[in-house]
Amino acid sequence: MRITFLGTSSGAPTRNRNVSSVALQLPEQGVLWLFDCGEGTQHQILRSPLRLSHLERIFITHLHGDHLFGLPGLLASRAMQNGGTTPVTLYGPVGLEEYVRLSLDISRSRPNYPIAVQTVRPGLIYEDKRFEVWAAPMRHRIECYGYAVIEKPLPGRFDVERARALGIPEGPLYGRLKAGEVIRLEDGRIIDGKTLVGPPRPGRKVVYCGDTIYTPKAVELAKGADLLIHEATYTNEELEHAKRGMHSTAEMAARTAAEAEVRCLILTHFSARYETGDKMNTLLQEAQAVFPNTLVAYDFMVYEVPRREPQ
Amino acid sequence: MRITFLGTSSGAPTRNRNVSSVALQLPEQGVLWLFDCGEGTQHQILRSPLRLSHLERIFITHLHGDHLFGLPGLLASRAMQNGGTTPVTLYGPVGLEEYVRLSLDISRSRPNYPIAVQTVRPGLIYEDKRFEVWAAPMRHRIECYGYAVIEKPLPGRFDVERARALGIPEGPLYGRLKAGEVIRLEDGRIIDGKTLVGPPRPGRKVVYCGDTIYTPKAVELAKGADLLIHEATYTNEELEHAKRGMHSTAEMAARTAAEAEVRCLILTHFSARYETGDKMNTLLQEAQAVFPNTLVAYDFMVYEVPRREPQ
Repeated sequence: MRITFLGTSSGAPTRNRNVSSVALQLPEQGVLWLFDCGEGTQHQILRSPLRLSHLERIFITHLHGDHLFGLPGLLASRAMQNGGTTPVTLYGPVGLEEYVRLSLDISRSRPNYPIAVQTVRPGLIYEDKRFEVWAAPMRHRIECYGYAVIEKPLPGRFDVERARALGIPEGPLYGRLKAGEVIRLEDGRIIDGKTLVGPPRPGRKVVYCGDTIYTPKAVELAKGADLLIHEATYTNEELEHAKRGMHSTAEMAARTAAEAEVRCLILTHFSARYETGDKMNTLLQEAQAVFPNTLVAYDFMVYEVPRREPQ
Repeated sequence: MRITFLGTSSGAPTRNRNVSSVALQLPEQGVLWLFDCGEGTQHQILRSPLRLSHLERIFITHLHGDHLFGLPGLLASRAMQNGGTTPVTLYGPVGLEEYVRLSLDISRSRPNYPIAVQTVRPGLIYEDKRFEVWAAPMRHRIECYGYAVIEKPLPGRFDVERARALGIPEGPLYGRLKAGEVIRLEDGRIIDGKTLVGPPRPGRKVVYCGDTIYTPKAVELAKGADLLIHEATYTNEELEHAKRGMHSTAEMAARTAAEAEVRCLILTHFSARYETGDKMNTLLQEAQAVFPNTLVAYDFMVYEVPRREPQ
């Protein structure tokens, strides 16, 4: 699971930061998911190693323009030189479907791949063999969601070395042993596959909180996550701004991370006022005072979510 | 009248070219007009000396996404750190108003300045003391317009040197003479202001043709223009593509320029296939064979439209 920050500014783009979008690659699946899609997200993808043809799902936290306005252009361009033909599913609040349909209709964009739009309600919103995605309501000026991507545990590793040492002939038997079957070898020995398979490997959990002021719902959603990506529009000096706009200070984001006992916190969605000088350091320090393992995102920053060892 | 090309790619952005937008500055008025507003136009403006606060009018040629999708974000951002509070008027085909209103409503963007939307019909669509703007239908897959900005003639220059040589005292008399009045000096001499004022200086004419295959309407619109900005999506090799998409080859654009007897032609809106190598030279050569004074636009190219000397 590889995260690429495509936009880390709040409200409007700056010279160095685009508006919100976070890419999640599931490399084994060759699949790309996006979280939010501010204007210029397709431009950022052009400047990254990501490919629109791999795009499978886009999760929109809320319908403010800096999280939304890149969607029609990205969907239209995907049908052009970028060559995506596989279906794309969009997830987001009520209104998303109307916006996307009208934008594509009025511009006579007729993507050559199916686009489904699913209106999000709190709870499990997606599941396949490998992943679950959960949505929880955030606390913002308009309907807004946080999303948790939960990787299911992987089966334990099959100990090929040991199987060989036991003189088990390579071939179809290995598959049956991996699956935990008990087999009888030609020489009469009975082997229990489970003894050759390690403990299940824990799945990873990545949580992306849309725009929100501090809320226990975010703590709940992020519980035990390997990575929490959380907005931090302001420093404590701008607490009143944060309250008025229902945004988080860096300290609020850190408090959420600490209470949720996550492994790593990455802050994003910064006010343009911190763009210059060392003001971003203040923001980071205010978070680290509460949750030390905090990073500050920048456009095109890549974070590989490490897998936990089995306990 | 200063032109800045903000996007010169057709269909989708490339690494080097954004989708369509052309800025026209009327420096004496401190005013900015835009023609088309593809996604990322606000980002391009950020990287230029242009200011959103100066924005007064946006003329949209047609509702294809690569000419349109930057509009909601640009209008929303103008209300934020860029600090524009003066009204903005949009001009374009039926559907523009619905798209803009829905995009701003659904994203809860409430710009702190008035936005008017005027549906374009062929003919005179705007006039003030200094300028007229005319629209003419282009020939494209959907309703599409070309726009002609026509500067009204300026009054002739007042010959200050000669007035001084005649011993006319500086002051209010100069204003009356400039206005063409006949005055009597204290020494009894009678001076006709018209003899001190040169001939009216011709206004300039700048024409921007939206997406179109060759059409006599474009020739008519561009008649005698100082500058024609015309799409040239393809070279002759891709003539069939041009016909199918109802786009122009460089040669078609040049033919329009030649028949309209314009002073200068600038090509824009290029297919991404000409991005690499020297393929853009082929495109330019095909145009110059028909109309020698042709330039090829690139993003951030600036062209100052020269004023003609009085005849």
